[in-house]
Amino acid sequence: VAEEFPSAISLAAGRPAERLYERLNPEWLRDAQACYERYAGRAGSTPNLRPCLLQYGRTAGIISELVAQQLKTDEQVPADSSEILITAGCQEALALCLPALCPDPEDVVLVPNPTYAGATGAAWANGIHTFPIANAHGDIVANIEQAVRNLQRSGRRPRAIYLIPNFDNPTGGVIEEPQRREILSLCAQLRVVVIEDSAYGMFRYEGPAIRPMFALDEAGCVIYVSTFSKTIAPSVRVGAATLPKTLFGDRAASKALWNDLVQRKSCMTGHTSQITQAIVGGILLDQNCSLQGWIQPALAQYKENRDAMLSELESVFSSMSELVRWNHPHGGFFLTLEFPFQFDRESSVECATQYGVIVMPMSFFASDNSQDRCTRLAFSAVDPLQIAPAIRSLGAYVLSHMGHEIGGAYEFANG
Amino acid sequence: VAEEFPSAISLAAGRPAERLYERLNPEWLRDAQACYERYAGRAGSTPNLRPCLLQYGRTAGIISELVAQQLKTDEQVPADSSEILITAGCQEALALCLPALCPDPEDVVLVPNPTYAGATGAAWANGIHTFPIANAHGDIVANIEQAVRNLQRSGRRPRAIYLIPNFDNPTGGVIEEPQRREILSLCAQLRVVVIEDSAYGMFRYEGPAIRPMFALDEAGCVIYVSTFSKTIAPSVRVGAATLPKTLFGDRAASKALWNDLVQRKSCMTGHTSQITQAIVGGILLDQNCSLQGWIQPALAQYKENRDAMLSELESVFSSMSELVRWNHPHGGFFLTLEFPFQFDRESSVECATQYGVIVMPMSFFASDNSQDRCTRLAFSAVDPLQIAPAIRSLGAYVLSHMGHEIGGAYEFANG
Repeated sequence: VAEEFPSAISLAAGRPAERLYERLNPEWLRDAQACYERYAGRAGSTPNLRPCLLQYGRTAGIISELVAQQLKTDEQVPADSSEILITAGCQEALALCLPALCPDPEDVVLVPNPTYAGATGAAWANGIHTFPIANAHGDIVANIEQAVRNLQRSGRRPRAIYLIPNFDNPTGGVIEEPQRREILSLCAQLRVVVIEDSAYGMFRYEGPAIRPMFALDEAGCVIYVSTFSKTIAPSVRVGAATLPKTLFGDRAASKALWNDLVQRKSCMTGHTSQITQAIVGGILLDQNCSLQGWIQPALAQYKENRDAMLSELESVFSSMSELVRWNHPHGGFFLTLEFPFQFDRESSVECATQYGVIVMPMSFFASDNSQDRCTRLAFSAVDPLQIAPAIRSLGAYVLSHMGHEIGGAYEFANG
Repeated sequence: VAEEFPSAISLAAGRPAERLYERLNPEWLRDAQACYERYAGRAGSTPNLRPCLLQYGRTAGIISELVAQQLKTDEQVPADSSEILITAGCQEALALCLPALCPDPEDVVLVPNPTYAGATGAAWANGIHTFPIANAHGDIVANIEQAVRNLQRSGRRPRAIYLIPNFDNPTGGVIEEPQRREILSLCAQLRVVVIEDSAYGMFRYEGPAIRPMFALDEAGCVIYVSTFSKTIAPSVRVGAATLPKTLFGDRAASKALWNDLVQRKSCMTGHTSQITQAIVGGILLDQNCSLQGWIQPALAQYKENRDAMLSELESVFSSMSELVRWNHPHGGFFLTLEFPFQFDRESSVECATQYGVIVMPMSFFASDNSQDRCTRLAFSAVDPLQIAPAIRSLGAYVLSHMGHEIGGAYEFANG
């Protein structure tokens, strides 16, 4: 839709703000080159790193020591470099972990409903069945347990659950620490591996940080998948999968999983480009292995955008707050807006053409009709000056649409 | 083995010669930066390319027009940019094509025996069965036909065959043009897709070029997979899959395959790094979309290495040419050396420790014991001054081992 209606304001794309790069171009490119050379200098003087960054390289990557330090400092993830597999973005980490955890036809991966389409996509590409877990109203733990029992009764084996505990894509929701602990306890008992996706974890705009499930895990049931797409740039295509020291207490099983992932990686992309690894590695060296300073401009920008969007939503929709609802995300790129009527692909096209604003129907991320009234609003990439007009246009759309609906149906009043 | 015995001369690694990069470092890095900026300048002025190379990018890649021109000029491959999917190296191209072509459990991919381990690995990682085709003695066409008939009788469906027609890895062999045409005719009739891997195609040291199967194909049964790993550098991790205009005459089927590959790519790695695509794109712009000049230093080096190895093999083994045989590859990185006795992993370790030379048992690439007397000698990466001592060491190893064998067994005499 965004390509078809280039003049419409897009609240659809869950990507970093491009103007952060524009501001830095072409200096960013020179910085990247300097980072590469800094890393190359270090690589040349470190015997356990390959001397030549242009050659075929180590399948598991060459910057895992620096990434281990960064994960420890910034994300409270305690991991040794030997447990970190460098991947072509978080997406490849998912695409490697899912088939390794779900080798048999009866194996199933649990996914929240709604969830990131890349997770269900990675399962699809590997021929793995997914099973949706209702995410709403905070009863996710009970929902997981019930799903697992039902699946087991029908002979299927839930092997893993995919979660974005911090600032979920698409909902913007957070799993609080008590829930994280309950999920961990349940998953340890049921022998279900948690794949914890931390893509947005460093983008918190208010409230205290919650320890990642990987850090809370005592049983050995969490794989932490992370990416430099949001902190540095998507196009470096550098992410990581971090394995627990044991898999459900079994050290050999975790090592076997590591070996399986490395072999899969070698069959999928060979290794991650050492050119872009070195750019990331050089930035990490430069920043003493913490990106907290590095992301400040982005953090400030995204917080400003979120605040502007929440403020405008309040201003436009407060008079109909019984009918139009939204959440107040403490971080990340997204929030959920619920209309009092169904909002689908056609509605999205109508919004774009008649009201000049593009939003993503939440049903795109859902496996049933439970999300049919919701949309995902992305505040990360939009120009801050366009947020108020975009939300006001949505207000006009809703008003007009409610006029239609009031005439014809009562369904929205039950929403 | 190479890591365990760093002092031994390695004829095992099928990689480009690192000293080509050493000679170019750090100028290469500055060149890469310049290439990136050149491409970025062009990208900025071309509306159909994304203005920002650091952002998430087009799944199918941003340099397919330049790659189309290069494939046409250098490799006689007639393709439009809309038929070229940019991948994270040739390995990802294989890992995407195989599951797209073999979606069902009974689907099988045919592979030469021996063959590149990355092809069987990509099949393994996707849960796809492979079936070996004996490659020896030039009767590959009859072998393919027989294999397909046998498979079909047992309810299995051969969907694709993987081939490296130019300077095969591991054997160094070439499929001549008449055979290429016969294979194409057979595959068109049997509806088997040929995956033509051209990794070594530009490295021909003698004899006229043979047109790729993709160019000879009239039925629409060849996917051409290519890489810049050998021509530019492995670490750019940029390759491509080029689709035929029709799939067995069906234009919609080819388009559906394209869409499937793009969707799989988006679920696997999202997109290929635009940073490294831009480095490749800048080099292609700089070289007027032909790498023939660019690879001259490598071509000269590899030819010199091949000549040195052939000459030394002649000098060392000519007196026992009935027992020790080798081929004379017209290009590529490898040749096959056949001993008059079994050569396995233990033999390789013995060679490394006692004779200071590392070679790869051909059985590593094989699915049966037909290759047990053969080794793959890689001449691409070895220091030219080490070739003579390495082959002489192999000579000493063979002499010593034949002494043992003559005492104990006659098997070598039947080889």
